[in-house]
Amino acid sequence: MPGSGKGVFVEVARNDYNLPVYTMGDVVREEALKRYGSAEPEHVLRTSIKLREEQGQDVIARRVYEEMDKGSNVVVVDGVRSLHEVEFFKSKGEVVVVAIHAPPRVRFERLLARNRPDDPKSWSEFKRRDEIELSLGVGSVIALADYVLINDSSVERAREEARRTLAAILSGASRA
Amino acid sequence: MPGSGKGVFVEVARNDYNLPVYTMGDVVREEALKRYGSAEPEHVLRTSIKLREEQGQDVIARRVYEEMDKGSNVVVVDGVRSLHEVEFFKSKGEVVVVAIHAPPRVRFERLLARNRPDDPKSWSEFKRRDEIELSLGVGSVIALADYVLINDSSVERAREEARRTLAAILSGASRA
Repeated sequence: MPGSGKGVFVEVARNDYNLPVYTMGDVVREEALKRYGSAEPEHVLRTSIKLREEQGQDVIARRVYEEMDKGSNVVVVDGVRSLHEVEFFKSKGEVVVVAIHAPPRVRFERLLARNRPDDPKSWSEFKRRDEIELSLGVGSVIALADYVLINDSSVERAREEARRTLAAILSGASRA
Repeated sequence: MPGSGKGVFVEVARNDYNLPVYTMGDVVREEALKRYGSAEPEHVLRTSIKLREEQGQDVIARRVYEEMDKGSNVVVVDGVRSLHEVEFFKSKGEVVVVAIHAPPRVRFERLLARNRPDDPKSWSEFKRRDEIELSLGVGSVIALADYVLINDSSVERAREEARRTLAAILSGASRA
């Protein structure tokens, strides 16, 4: 969910574990640029919905997969939104789903503080944004996650939890 | 989700904090008995879907609310399944949503070990049961929870987390 801080996990995976990261949102932004000549939030959102309608619920996962370096043993995919996407990746290899959770009030305050142009400026805008995410099915992905990291306090604690989780996952992966 | 161990939280709320607990499932079981003269899992499930179709997505929440002792300052509602139900309770007072999470593999093994007549006996049955829960919208409730407790190890640790969480919630409630 927006503001839960999944960026911290991605950053740790990249910097501390040297894992290649593939970002679902990059695919959508690229396509929005092609379609509208713009990666404004409005256009990105429209593209992400249109693309799924036209080419199936797992289209973004498929595009990310095409771009993947098949020589890598372990990769991180940032920004999975539905079980369709999880199922697609499971058809290609072993998948470990990691969700990052923060309470709505905490996420809202983070987004206000972050204040990127596409971040919500009011509680009602925040709630509307949440509803769009949930309508894609991200709640089911969280409910069925293999790991849920609670990120309701400091960045440093979130980093530590990310490190611990990645260590557990990678020790499992090397056993497999 | 089935097997995540929400019973531990309810037990701690009842025994250690003396809070009244209202169970959404009891309402459904009662209605199943009225309709089919049976509270077999099959009938309970059918009733829970029928009831919502006939009388709205928040019907079970409404019935639970009718039964509540309005003199209690704090009550626990066990088994909320959708944001419709959360919204209903929010229209009646302050609501704190607590979700209990365990990874699917852990939940599956717990249900196998518990072996109640209505518990799944195979991975495919387990997945089907999960899909029914998710179709009611429980994933969105988890995604927007105020607290997510991770219950992937021992009952004793789960109890401790439940105690800590309830203490935090109740200190907030007494301030309000």
